[in-house]
Amino acid sequence: MKIYRYPEKKTWPDLVQRPVFEREEISGLITEIFEAVGKGGDQALIEFNKKFDKAVTQQITVSETELANAENEISEDLKKAIQQAKENISKFHASQIVETQKIETIKGVTCWRENRAIEKVGIYIPGGTAPLFSTVLMLAVPANLAGCREIILCTPPDSSGNINPAILFTAKLCGITKIFKTGGAQAVAAMALGTESIPKVYKIFGPGNQYVVAAKEYAQRYGVAIDMPAGPSEVLVIADSKAVPEFCAADLLSQAEHGSDSQVVFMTTDFKIFTETIEAVEKQIKKLPRNEMAGQALDHSLFILVNSIDEALKFSNLYAPEHLILALEDFDEYVPMIENAGSVFLGNYSCESAGDYASGTNHTLPTNAYAKNYSGVSLDSFVKKITFQHLSKEGLKKIGKTIEIMAEAEGLIAHKNAVSIRLK
Amino acid sequence: MKIYRYPEKKTWPDLVQRPVFEREEISGLITEIFEAVGKGGDQALIEFNKKFDKAVTQQITVSETELANAENEISEDLKKAIQQAKENISKFHASQIVETQKIETIKGVTCWRENRAIEKVGIYIPGGTAPLFSTVLMLAVPANLAGCREIILCTPPDSSGNINPAILFTAKLCGITKIFKTGGAQAVAAMALGTESIPKVYKIFGPGNQYVVAAKEYAQRYGVAIDMPAGPSEVLVIADSKAVPEFCAADLLSQAEHGSDSQVVFMTTDFKIFTETIEAVEKQIKKLPRNEMAGQALDHSLFILVNSIDEALKFSNLYAPEHLILALEDFDEYVPMIENAGSVFLGNYSCESAGDYASGTNHTLPTNAYAKNYSGVSLDSFVKKITFQHLSKEGLKKIGKTIEIMAEAEGLIAHKNAVSIRLK
Repeated sequence: MKIYRYPEKKTWPDLVQRPVFEREEISGLITEIFEAVGKGGDQALIEFNKKFDKAVTQQITVSETELANAENEISEDLKKAIQQAKENISKFHASQIVETQKIETIKGVTCWRENRAIEKVGIYIPGGTAPLFSTVLMLAVPANLAGCREIILCTPPDSSGNINPAILFTAKLCGITKIFKTGGAQAVAAMALGTESIPKVYKIFGPGNQYVVAAKEYAQRYGVAIDMPAGPSEVLVIADSKAVPEFCAADLLSQAEHGSDSQVVFMTTDFKIFTETIEAVEKQIKKLPRNEMAGQALDHSLFILVNSIDEALKFSNLYAPEHLILALEDFDEYVPMIENAGSVFLGNYSCESAGDYASGTNHTLPTNAYAKNYSGVSLDSFVKKITFQHLSKEGLKKIGKTIEIMAEAEGLIAHKNAVSIRLK
Repeated sequence: MKIYRYPEKKTWPDLVQRPVFEREEISGLITEIFEAVGKGGDQALIEFNKKFDKAVTQQITVSETELANAENEISEDLKKAIQQAKENISKFHASQIVETQKIETIKGVTCWRENRAIEKVGIYIPGGTAPLFSTVLMLAVPANLAGCREIILCTPPDSSGNINPAILFTAKLCGITKIFKTGGAQAVAAMALGTESIPKVYKIFGPGNQYVVAAKEYAQRYGVAIDMPAGPSEVLVIADSKAVPEFCAADLLSQAEHGSDSQVVFMTTDFKIFTETIEAVEKQIKKLPRNEMAGQALDHSLFILVNSIDEALKFSNLYAPEHLILALEDFDEYVPMIENAGSVFLGNYSCESAGDYASGTNHTLPTNAYAKNYSGVSLDSFVKKITFQHLSKEGLKKIGKTIEIMAEAEGLIAHKNAVSIRLK
């Protein structure tokens, strides 16, 4: 833990720094993987499964049988929980559908926007220590609501060549039937380039390690869009004297357990809450199965005593955290001050895990200070908004002169002619 | 002109190909420019002005006097036209403001989104053959509506070291007072890195040549966002037997005059309209001051006879044009078929120039088939949508079990604890 008592404002820019990753180092490898997948297709993916995931896979497509069996391999309780979460996520994301509103900017000139789903989207779900079926919900639910016609999912197999049944169950529940056993940069390459089995998609979503992140960035040169740039997960908790140290500690640790690079920041105005939260963290961490990872994350975490909640909010806006928890009695007062954050949790009972899993909000959020210029994933991420306009002859008459004068001033006479010829 | 009569569907993927630009070629130069601007700041920009724009500039900041004088250097008619366009653009973009809607996903669990402006944005306006003051409107109006606190503008000086007065007038009208005389990749570098005079911004908007495009792409590694990837401008016109060949020709030419790399596509079911439109193009182009550029664009334009309007729409969806004009009597019938397009113009009186300048829609649109996965610039481009949630104790009780089960199944016990400790 790094402890700061009332740090001066001039030190803040240093305190909000995120870890720097050397992108150049792996860029050669990413290029090689894209070339191999581009040339070798499915066969290259099967070889990468062997090389990187120690998995023997005869074919990369998950079979109907595997998909059907998954349902029997997980508990009823888990199924119910996933269904409940799906309902809440659906409800919140459905509320983001905006009705078309036609605007007559001047008489006879009508403009509006209509949503169209991105036709083909790819979801990447990492393997590794935690089977992130919750991320399947967070990406597949809005993709379906938006009306994406082709939704595919790539995730690495375990060493026996299988996919975690909770991932398969959730995918099926969300209507995804094209699931492929491939992970890492090669999965991203496959979705960007297409193979015999895997269709080329227009946008790639989902978290991953630095290879996946670099591959998503690289994929953009093939015309593919990505959800957002990525970095390690983050939480910033602001607590007042009415906060509960045990709750704050639990929230900080739920961020810390994600990985040794997780970013954890705690700020309070209250010395008692400060020390008791630190004590609670030390106590709670001992019982965690992932306590080694969490401990490493805590080593570089920031615990900051501040003069006022206002000051904490200003620091938070500079930091731009992925998750911001306001463990404040009068949180309503501070909401308008929030400028940069991915998702905000208000009050003592709004733990980050609620949004991570089941409250309804999306957990795919901007990290690494990208909350300054990016939004988290929402229904909007799966659509394009196309503008439409209709001008009547009268409408063009009304606006024609304006267009002609402006076009001429820009030296674009054909633009002017397109009006003049119609009004002649 | 490339003329195709009823091309088979299997040939379409070739027909929709866009020109390929070699990005690797200029990447060394872009890196050098970023390094020079990073080290040299304003002085480097002054030197680049001399080197690339043959302009002597003592300082890069446009002075109050220059800004005030601009008003006297342009005609009253042009001022009025710019003001009229600004009103329409404001009206349409203001209609995109969505009110916050709080959703109770289950009792005691309330989720919503709030917009926050991106604090600092930079607008790039190219110099060159046309002074694009219309693009100032298209970017500054929504930036202001969104509430961006710092809106800066960079544009290259002419060889006398001045900025076109229409650009200055429009910028001032839109409340932009920080204007800098710098262009090309160096302007992008300055906005991404910051200099003594130019503040570092969080998002960069605006068109430009391949150096600007490459620099915007490169800028992203400094954490800056950009409006969208870019390519040459495009129009696809679909006409039926009731279309007016002279109007279609004028629209095609208003695209062609943008530059020799402009993409122009004309499709019709009617042989008479087909030949007469070609004739009208040949006739109209002769009178254009930019006829050499337009002629080069026409050399690689596509004129395609198709069997049905349905077929034309399918081709258009595969092409994903920046601008789509439906010169069709029953255009309403075909709107639902449109899947991929930047902005759509309906009927015989909705010329592209209307949207380019004054109807109210934005003219910063996805090109190069990016209409498959990107929207044009709108109010959304200048805000982040932050999610908020509040859970009451009762709300957490209702949803707690679901979170605990899911967290445990993902192996994230600290996530589970954050709920359990609150419900104990």
